[in-house]
Amino acid sequence: MKKTFDLSLYLVLDPDLCGGAEGMVSTTLAAIQGDVTVVQLRAPTWKKRAVAECARELLRLMPASVPLIINDHADVARAVGAAGVHVGQKDLSPEDCRLIVGPDAVVGLSISNIDELSRLIVDERSRLSSDDDVSRPGVDDVSRFSPAVDYIGIGPVFPTGTKKDAAPVVGLEGLRTLLKTAPVPAVAIGGISEVNARSVYETGVSGIAVVSAICGKSDPEAAARSLLATRSSF
Amino acid sequence: MKKTFDLSLYLVLDPDLCGGAEGMVSTTLAAIQGDVTVVQLRAPTWKKRAVAECARELLRLMPASVPLIINDHADVARAVGAAGVHVGQKDLSPEDCRLIVGPDAVVGLSISNIDELSRLIVDERSRLSSDDDVSRPGVDDVSRFSPAVDYIGIGPVFPTGTKKDAAPVVGLEGLRTLLKTAPVPAVAIGGISEVNARSVYETGVSGIAVVSAICGKSDPEAAARSLLATRSSF
Repeated sequence: MKKTFDLSLYLVLDPDLCGGAEGMVSTTLAAIQGDVTVVQLRAPTWKKRAVAECARELLRLMPASVPLIINDHADVARAVGAAGVHVGQKDLSPEDCRLIVGPDAVVGLSISNIDELSRLIVDERSRLSSDDDVSRPGVDDVSRFSPAVDYIGIGPVFPTGTKKDAAPVVGLEGLRTLLKTAPVPAVAIGGISEVNARSVYETGVSGIAVVSAICGKSDPEAAARSLLATRSSF
Repeated sequence: MKKTFDLSLYLVLDPDLCGGAEGMVSTTLAAIQGDVTVVQLRAPTWKKRAVAECARELLRLMPASVPLIINDHADVARAVGAAGVHVGQKDLSPEDCRLIVGPDAVVGLSISNIDELSRLIVDERSRLSSDDDVSRPGVDDVSRFSPAVDYIGIGPVFPTGTKKDAAPVVGLEGLRTLLKTAPVPAVAIGGISEVNARSVYETGVSGIAVVSAICGKSDPEAAARSLLATRSSF
């Protein structure tokens, strides 16, 4: 059985905004005090040994109730025993990631437009229909019996400065459109702040993912609480 | 039982020198005609989806007798079913890689000086001694019962232009010194060409690894044969 996870407030760590590995750890612990529900370790310019070390330090200090997701690196996620991995369209495919992290880990995928979402739906359907053929040889049990993607990240909802290769802006209308056919829970990402968080929650998305709205703040705990408060006010 | 592998002539692919993915495939197939014994896919600037696609194409076309090793990415190696993974000192640790690729895959580690080699020897000894304690809880079978490192790459033996973050040159004398205490087979790398290959083989190293001596050549098959010929001449 797949672990349940709460996407309500999803913190994506940024090494530059946090001031390195130590800053990422302290930001994480403060943000968890402010009820962040998921933490993703994303350090695209770091070598993997540094990512693994930081991940192990986070896992040592974080409460087990908050899942740690590793960006891009399924091998790091598996090696350190993180809750899961999040990949983009050019990273290792969700199916390949599933093979590495196993059936009980969380696999997330970034989606920026209807084409990527349609491909995901087709992929999931063809994979699920092939599940019926249990005698098919050469197919790994893990890839056959567990969904490849557990949740999607949709974005950028608004313009963002923290991801250099970000796709065109989706907007709130685009987010609503994509949510209608999303086959799995979705978290919205990109330019979300205390100012616009309420409008994003109102689309019915499962949660919001933020980088600079927490990593760039002097009080990450208060920043997290403020973001969540925009949801409870409706 | 660990698979045997022949390090005699180890080709490290370079996307720029080969002219992209297609060029890497054609270079590989020609070089294998010239009796290259190992091929490593190294594309540090590529996203992992592209690395995995290229690896699958190589595996489809290469004879099973020649192992394909993936640079840096244990997850890609495991997902595509490559023979193994090669990591540097700042990549995922060999122990973590072993956990991902399993006991039958090959794990290689780059070594540039006596300190790195000493650490490897200590690591292997402490790991081996802990193998006796089979009752120790919480330790994965794979990490307990299989050596973390199957071979090392020692270099750069000579100055090289194909690795931007290369360590200081080891030299032939340095190579001989390191080989004396190397606990596993070693392949020498860095600036090795038809001109100096014989001097490297003469150190007693298990093999030589080359990038531009094959990838940059109009006839990779002939280039491979010429390199191997320097060994058979003594």
